[in-house]
Amino acid sequence: MTDLACKVIDMCRQIAGFSEEPGRTTRTFLSPPMREVHHALGVWMSALGMQVRIDAAGNLRGTTGGAGPRLIIGSHLDTVPNAGAFDGILGVVLGIALVEALGKARVVSIEVIGFSEEEGVRFGVPFIGSRAVVGTLDESTLSRGIGAAIRDFGLNPADLDEARLSCDVAGFLEFHIEQGPVLDDLGLRLGVVEGILGQSRMRVTFHGQANHAGTTPMALRHDALAAAAEWISRVECLALADRELRATVGAIEVEPNATNVIAGKVRASLDVRHWSDEQRHRAVEALFHEAQEIGARRKVGVEFEKGLDQTATPMDRDLTARLARAVGAAGYPVHPMMSGAGHDAMILAPHVPSAMLFLRSPGGLSHHPDESVIAEDVEAALEVGMRFVRDV
Amino acid sequence: MTDLACKVIDMCRQIAGFSEEPGRTTRTFLSPPMREVHHALGVWMSALGMQVRIDAAGNLRGTTGGAGPRLIIGSHLDTVPNAGAFDGILGVVLGIALVEALGKARVVSIEVIGFSEEEGVRFGVPFIGSRAVVGTLDESTLSRGIGAAIRDFGLNPADLDEARLSCDVAGFLEFHIEQGPVLDDLGLRLGVVEGILGQSRMRVTFHGQANHAGTTPMALRHDALAAAAEWISRVECLALADRELRATVGAIEVEPNATNVIAGKVRASLDVRHWSDEQRHRAVEALFHEAQEIGARRKVGVEFEKGLDQTATPMDRDLTARLARAVGAAGYPVHPMMSGAGHDAMILAPHVPSAMLFLRSPGGLSHHPDESVIAEDVEAALEVGMRFVRDV
Repeated sequence: MTDLACKVIDMCRQIAGFSEEPGRTTRTFLSPPMREVHHALGVWMSALGMQVRIDAAGNLRGTTGGAGPRLIIGSHLDTVPNAGAFDGILGVVLGIALVEALGKARVVSIEVIGFSEEEGVRFGVPFIGSRAVVGTLDESTLSRGIGAAIRDFGLNPADLDEARLSCDVAGFLEFHIEQGPVLDDLGLRLGVVEGILGQSRMRVTFHGQANHAGTTPMALRHDALAAAAEWISRVECLALADRELRATVGAIEVEPNATNVIAGKVRASLDVRHWSDEQRHRAVEALFHEAQEIGARRKVGVEFEKGLDQTATPMDRDLTARLARAVGAAGYPVHPMMSGAGHDAMILAPHVPSAMLFLRSPGGLSHHPDESVIAEDVEAALEVGMRFVRDV
Repeated sequence: MTDLACKVIDMCRQIAGFSEEPGRTTRTFLSPPMREVHHALGVWMSALGMQVRIDAAGNLRGTTGGAGPRLIIGSHLDTVPNAGAFDGILGVVLGIALVEALGKARVVSIEVIGFSEEEGVRFGVPFIGSRAVVGTLDESTLSRGIGAAIRDFGLNPADLDEARLSCDVAGFLEFHIEQGPVLDDLGLRLGVVEGILGQSRMRVTFHGQANHAGTTPMALRHDALAAAAEWISRVECLALADRELRATVGAIEVEPNATNVIAGKVRASLDVRHWSDEQRHRAVEALFHEAQEIGARRKVGVEFEKGLDQTATPMDRDLTARLARAVGAAGYPVHPMMSGAGHDAMILAPHVPSAMLFLRSPGGLSHHPDESVIAEDVEAALEVGMRFVRDV
């Protein structure tokens, strides 16, 4: 299995060279280097006796023979700009490697899918590949240049119906790097994903009064940045008090943003994630009240603009239990965890029983050229995959 | 005196029309509308029998006859972009009005100076006019385009020596709007300025770790913005504890400044002002240690770049006492106060005994088209000026 794990890593690194930009990895939806990815993986799939096709959404699909309910294994082929070599592609390559490892011992039909798009870089629309597969890629989305891109790649949007999953699909399994520091921090190779956190995004604007930093005594100020700073500390404090909550102020705009002028206006982003949608909404509400309390005390106006409100997505209970059994049987600690980021499994889960296995991200590093994966962790994932497939 | 106060306000409003930009007041160093200002005020000065000249720095200077030590009264003629009608110019117009009000009763020789430049807008160099008058406008400053601007206006930089104050100057008096909310908040017309606060400026950079807002648990973060927010609250807290201290974080840059990414780097400005240079330095030191403590606890690096360190400038004790006597004798409460902003008096004070009278800024508003002044306050300033001049 060690050789196969090294082959997986080598293949991911080779594919990282298929890029729109020299010297770094950037591969967006149906960009020219995607053809090289299709070719490299298609050759390997064919060598394993799989039937290979590119569907109308640009997804690479390889199917083994065999009867009975089909297991889908996959992840995405596209990358963010200046990406690492493992985000997405590892889950596709591991799927093919698993077919190789299972060989004649395979007991179910397997379809490996390399989704054409997950990151949302090219058109600002994420999950194009997986949405096509579950049939939720609507006309209005297609009209945003996506249909034209499909045609430019030599595919036909009219064939999108043929991209949809067939009825004989029993489940979906996604291998993915964690893209966070949790497993690395705990010294664990693998994590069993129980669900994907729900997410709220909004903007909070503090309307203070711009004034001269020299002539305005502290007691007569209505400093929008001081108000925002107090609130940012409360956001952090609230999130630290609930292990399941993640709340982040990552972006801020200050007006006039001058050294000698008290800030008149501050616009701050807020990103809140939680496994429980109810508790997420409660946290947002609490942070809204905190902002209002701070504003009222300081005579600083507070304005809220609500944005994204995405519910949490649980993975399938039975399939996840089967994955946990496989982890334990392979001799690794079972670490159930939540995914704080969205993945293709989030799109498939409402339609197909889905499970997801995280591989440790050394240093928690992702979306970065130094993103990496450890060979022993890949070997562990392969062992778990073998046991998972056989445990019908 | 009521008529004269109205004349002062009318003249200021008329001069606000002399602008580089249609519809708003912007008048930088030796810009074309400055000629109209020189002309309008020169006509009035001449009508009062004053000798009028424009010196080589573009300062407008009008001198009354009379022997004995000379009193300088003045302020600046230039404005910030989109300015109000009173910042600077009021002090010049009040000087001329005072000469008119004193008439034959005048007991000392008076020179009214309209300084050509105080705001530093055109060349990023403030106080060009007053620095020429005290002889601190050096060659290297002149070479930054200022010499050329002087020549373009039809003046000769070689004559700058003649702009310097003569030996018979006994004192300098500047009338200026407060540009802050203190007098308005206290319901007072006038303030006797005892000195101009010293000022420190610096940049503080927090080096955290950019990371995914979804996948990074709160406890594993090194959030540069959360660190900066905690520090901004401490800055405000420290300043609120000392009535004489003003400390402001007005500008902030966040990297990458994205909603779903924990801030990796935050660069914040710090502006600290105090009457006592020692206490100002102590406050800066304390805020430096606060930042380091916050950084150490959060494993966020902290970097300090020191900038401006300008000492406090006291006004002349005797001349200020005489100004306070005049305020009291005119029947107004004597309110000694500090100026948090720089003024021409800051440049003259080390060379000539200087005093400064603030007029209330309604709403604390300045550097804004709605900047205003109340006629009764101007009348009060004229009355005080009369008593000040006569109290030799």
